[in-house]
Amino acid sequence: MPTLTIQLHRERAYPVHVGQGLLAQVASLSARAGLSPRRVLLVADSNVPAKHARALAASFTAKGVHVATLTLVASEPHKSLDTLARIWHAASDLRLDRDDCILALTGGCLGDVVGLAASTYRRGIAGVQCPTTLLACVDASVGGKTAINLLPSAGAPLIKNLIGTFHQPALVVSDVACLASLPKALLSDGLAECVKHACLTSNARSPSLWLRTQRLIPLVLRRDAKALATLIASNVAIKASIASPDPRELAPDAAGGRALLNFGHTFGHVLEGLPLRKGQPPLSHGCAVALGMVAASHAGLAMGLCTPRVVEDVMDMLALAGLPTQFEADLAKHFDLAPLLSPPSAGLDYSLALPAALSQRMLATDKKVRGGKLRIIVPTGPKPGTCRVVSNPPEHALHAAWQSVLP
Amino acid sequence: MPTLTIQLHRERAYPVHVGQGLLAQVASLSARAGLSPRRVLLVADSNVPAKHARALAASFTAKGVHVATLTLVASEPHKSLDTLARIWHAASDLRLDRDDCILALTGGCLGDVVGLAASTYRRGIAGVQCPTTLLACVDASVGGKTAINLLPSAGAPLIKNLIGTFHQPALVVSDVACLASLPKALLSDGLAECVKHACLTSNARSPSLWLRTQRLIPLVLRRDAKALATLIASNVAIKASIASPDPRELAPDAAGGRALLNFGHTFGHVLEGLPLRKGQPPLSHGCAVALGMVAASHAGLAMGLCTPRVVEDVMDMLALAGLPTQFEADLAKHFDLAPLLSPPSAGLDYSLALPAALSQRMLATDKKVRGGKLRIIVPTGPKPGTCRVVSNPPEHALHAAWQSVLP
Repeated sequence: MPTLTIQLHRERAYPVHVGQGLLAQVASLSARAGLSPRRVLLVADSNVPAKHARALAASFTAKGVHVATLTLVASEPHKSLDTLARIWHAASDLRLDRDDCILALTGGCLGDVVGLAASTYRRGIAGVQCPTTLLACVDASVGGKTAINLLPSAGAPLIKNLIGTFHQPALVVSDVACLASLPKALLSDGLAECVKHACLTSNARSPSLWLRTQRLIPLVLRRDAKALATLIASNVAIKASIASPDPRELAPDAAGGRALLNFGHTFGHVLEGLPLRKGQPPLSHGCAVALGMVAASHAGLAMGLCTPRVVEDVMDMLALAGLPTQFEADLAKHFDLAPLLSPPSAGLDYSLALPAALSQRMLATDKKVRGGKLRIIVPTGPKPGTCRVVSNPPEHALHAAWQSVLP
Repeated sequence: MPTLTIQLHRERAYPVHVGQGLLAQVASLSARAGLSPRRVLLVADSNVPAKHARALAASFTAKGVHVATLTLVASEPHKSLDTLARIWHAASDLRLDRDDCILALTGGCLGDVVGLAASTYRRGIAGVQCPTTLLACVDASVGGKTAINLLPSAGAPLIKNLIGTFHQPALVVSDVACLASLPKALLSDGLAECVKHACLTSNARSPSLWLRTQRLIPLVLRRDAKALATLIASNVAIKASIASPDPRELAPDAAGGRALLNFGHTFGHVLEGLPLRKGQPPLSHGCAVALGMVAASHAGLAMGLCTPRVVEDVMDMLALAGLPTQFEADLAKHFDLAPLLSPPSAGLDYSLALPAALSQRMLATDKKVRGGKLRIIVPTGPKPGTCRVVSNPPEHALHAAWQSVLP
């Protein structure tokens, strides 16, 4: 049961526990982390088997703590003000005070909303994250970013996670038992963030990280509990090593800082935020990030910052993880591109207009934009393992990036 | 034009400017504070004369900064999720990025909402407070507490400021010109917080503070610009000296810390939060705090912590400031007390039941409650000027406190 203590620059530290069967121990782990709630609000994901919520609740009731459970649907459309208000009202009805806490038993999507609720209820009470997806274990549950989406005004693009705070959890407990029943696609989603971490730190941290990730991926896809725990623990450590020195993403571009964790996300969020045509399935966050990493790698290549080998290695690793490296369907059939390309001109050259429109959308919606300048993260060097921030990238590089992932 | 720099423990510093005609200089003061917005959202109070909003906007447009103005109603019922969402949407429609900022030209009520919007839009952008009431100048605009009220579930009591964050403003500009047209009742409201500050620090800070406050009050009620600027500057300094070492109100009870600033508020919030009978005017924050200070002083007296002289001096100073020292109307005619006293028993002894019910309400709604224990702030010593936190006060003291302000 690996335990990591995350020391934050100018903020408090909090423990992250990873292991099998930990949900039954969350109450005692909370006490060890200094929490002494009299009441807790458990926000449970309707997709997570009820036995997990029961085990988590029982750990507190056994100690005489009153537990109320609020079961909610976890999905991007539900990552909303309405869901946030429901959690606030449940906390208020339960009369949680500043010594009490809110538990999230869910993935990253609803976990972000619970984090924002904990961060703003009575100006901040303790939030405990019990992630139930690989993505939440290796990424969302750690680092203190909380968020909801804001429904855009008519015609305006969705800006993902536009509203939120930086609020570190009081405790994170990753019970790999929660991952045992996870569909393979959701495991792949989580692996996208692990590949990202390997792209960011393989050189600096350990040259063998790339190979180790490669070795663990097939085991994780077979839901091997030991491989899952190992992968989660090492990826939490990597994320913490990047996020903790720069918790509020304020480092200058040259230093990189927390913004580096946006590798693949700047491009990916654009695809994730496009309005779907009726009946089309949403693009998962992991798939969007995978496509985003392919695009960003091609941008790095086009700027002469990395070699073709880097691009190939990134794409190979993504394929190994069961992730896409190209958007296979017809983009215009999957998404409603009308708002993107309006007004559509008669002789529109689709292959030229679409990348330009996607870049425009990226400039309009990316939260890293400062002073009207786009900032993207691209790989550098002869092999994967190092990235940097590029401010105001040239148009031809963005064009090459989008071309690489569009059919 | 006195300028104070507030150094925060573990948080950044920000300047507070106080003077006449400063609204026309806010853009240059912003630049001096390190802000370089390309766009600003000006949230203007519909009660503030339009010339002030124009002066503020013009200071930015003269420098080529795009300004959009959102005019909103400032009132307790509008201190809501709806108002917060309107500001978020306006910021999003304006495409504010992390280098841009939101300006509040209003009093404490709407200013708190603007602060919360700035604190959560893109996980925090710069907020500039331009307070337009004396209360906001001496209290709400400084210290970084942001808030909205959450509409309670049916039958549940309102908990004021239940949702919020700690987010320091980037800059505060108090232009006393905004106070020139303020009704006298609003000046009295602001003076309630000045009397509170004098009650907290006259002994430690300077024995003459009590007398100086006494001397300034009549001048301030005549809207003397110099007296206003002097009073505001000294009260901002007092508030900062108490709030800055403990920005998140985490100091232990023995140390007092920021919780001391709740003197008068723990009792006052209960009265402020009672549902009004139809047609009755709301109790202003200043009047509620004045009554709360009288109640808290009587609690201190009942516990033998302060002398009768303290209680008399506090009441005299409040009367000088045009504030009430007793709730003059029939409480049951002004407020709907049914939810407080339900189920009403047949032989209910009103004079006994009401104080107990108000104390119960205080326990249920006060945000300082920890582990189910009430914490109140009471004066100590032979003369006004020092207060302390009392955890779990005896029932007889709470009874004496409520009796002192009820008719």
